[in-house]
Amino acid sequence: MSSKPAGRTILASTIAKPFVEEITASVQQLGFKPKLVGFLANGDPAAQMYANWTGKTCEGLGFEYELVQVDKNDLESALMKANKDDNVHGIMVYFPVFGDNQDQYLQQLISTEKDVEGLNFMYYHNLYHNVRFLDPPYNEQKSILPCTPLAMVKILEYLGVYNIILHYGNRLYGKKVLIVNRSEIVGRPLAALLANDGATVYSVDINNIQQFTRGDDLSEQRHKVIDLDSKEHTLESLAPQCDVIITGVPSESYKFPTNYVRNGAVVINFSSNKNFNDDVKQKAGLYVPSIGKVTIAMLLRNLIRLIKNKNHRATLQKTAA
Amino acid sequence: MSSKPAGRTILASTIAKPFVEEITASVQQLGFKPKLVGFLANGDPAAQMYANWTGKTCEGLGFEYELVQVDKNDLESALMKANKDDNVHGIMVYFPVFGDNQDQYLQQLISTEKDVEGLNFMYYHNLYHNVRFLDPPYNEQKSILPCTPLAMVKILEYLGVYNIILHYGNRLYGKKVLIVNRSEIVGRPLAALLANDGATVYSVDINNIQQFTRGDDLSEQRHKVIDLDSKEHTLESLAPQCDVIITGVPSESYKFPTNYVRNGAVVINFSSNKNFNDDVKQKAGLYVPSIGKVTIAMLLRNLIRLIKNKNHRATLQKTAA
Repeated sequence: MSSKPAGRTILASTIAKPFVEEITASVQQLGFKPKLVGFLANGDPAAQMYANWTGKTCEGLGFEYELVQVDKNDLESALMKANKDDNVHGIMVYFPVFGDNQDQYLQQLISTEKDVEGLNFMYYHNLYHNVRFLDPPYNEQKSILPCTPLAMVKILEYLGVYNIILHYGNRLYGKKVLIVNRSEIVGRPLAALLANDGATVYSVDINNIQQFTRGDDLSEQRHKVIDLDSKEHTLESLAPQCDVIITGVPSESYKFPTNYVRNGAVVINFSSNKNFNDDVKQKAGLYVPSIGKVTIAMLLRNLIRLIKNKNHRATLQKTAA
Repeated sequence: MSSKPAGRTILASTIAKPFVEEITASVQQLGFKPKLVGFLANGDPAAQMYANWTGKTCEGLGFEYELVQVDKNDLESALMKANKDDNVHGIMVYFPVFGDNQDQYLQQLISTEKDVEGLNFMYYHNLYHNVRFLDPPYNEQKSILPCTPLAMVKILEYLGVYNIILHYGNRLYGKKVLIVNRSEIVGRPLAALLANDGATVYSVDINNIQQFTRGDDLSEQRHKVIDLDSKEHTLESLAPQCDVIITGVPSESYKFPTNYVRNGAVVINFSSNKNFNDDVKQKAGLYVPSIGKVTIAMLLRNLIRLIKNKNHRATLQKTAA
């Protein structure tokens, strides 16, 4: 093993920079301070810290941010009030609150017009079905994508994994991507999103490995999922074939085996825990150890998109009246 | 098989365009018409046609072109005369002339200062040893690269195979390239060049398959070559793993098996024969069916570089005097 790696470590702040600039310019163009409200109902000091960091980032980019601390039993009515408040442009909740299915109920209660995280089922439905606009056939209102999967797409674009010479929608053709995480919030929608863009995605969770593709030759319009035979296909056999390895395992102790990473692979961790040992730098072509700063940029980008979509609908209504 | 391919066919003229523009601008800056002399000594009508095409391209870009037809036994003295002629800036010969080792003798007779094709052993030596300048440690005179390998690098850059986020010199890290051709003029130097830039290259000829790499983790400064075990590694087992497949087989009948091409692979043919059947378009991510127009652009780019290197040496001599 050589002492100086052949590849590079790329920080999220570097990737976020052009987006931060774009967002700052967009806010100035709007002529008012968009307001994001974050609801904290779990009393978790880590969530509190994260909320404070979100707040600082928002204010730094010209947004107004309000952190509302409520009792978990009051969260439902607080969300309904914020949905109706014309001064509130974006809403987010620091989950988990109850830590069960009630959290999903609360999440879906947020108006699609203010859902900055893009977590509403309508947005997920569009993502899974490769529907990119809210108003076909006019296609002027872009659908919102969930922040973390969207951040991952922007990171893969920055890293040159998306090949801009290929047609839009097919820019991951030929790429193999392994994702260790199949949560409903990130892992599964991310696998679908990358497969819809042409990749062959291996989605790994504790139970099995699934393959997401639009067919080997992209003959399908949207991806299909199959369960892989666990005897024939293992993490050990698949990972070394992959161009990209993405992990999101919420555990201090979990480490992706460095010897499964092929030399020159793109390696990205989106967990708040460190899913790779440092020796991965000796193998990775490009290594992104965390993505938080890109994710929050996408959250604020979504907020601006929500405002634009709303303005667009208002213009249409005026024209119709 | 779907009727509309997921990938794209890219024409050499598209890739050559920015270079043609750069060359035209450079010639205008020089303030005189650089002169290229082509020697034709084999009476081959195909070579004559190719020579005429070279001539037209040269003149279109602001160069002067002279085609000299000589008897093969007079070629040596004609080359020596052109070497000394200050009005001649670049020299090339349409080979084969004798069709044996004498051709190599004649090739090496061309002054390194006028060798537009970059075929002098000194230039090949630099290529194999990853030496990029003629005047270390000043590094102001760039070494000349043989036209076809250089054209291939520019094509791979255009196609996004070189990843510009990686450090210069490592931009093919993690890429696997198959090259069917191991000629001294193109195939072997090309394999070395791509391995020196970080790729794992499988070089195929009639006898065996060789692997060119700087080590899996690029720990070497320049590439090393090993013969692969022919039982363990076959074209059939290696090709489907490759990101890039390059062919240069000078035969009407040879066709690379389409079923060995992985979906989404980059496929490039540099032979003047068509080494792929049309069905490769159903599998290739990017397909470049011929590269001639990029190669001639590189020839003229080399000519300008030779003039710049000469001017640089002249300035140094004046300063020293």
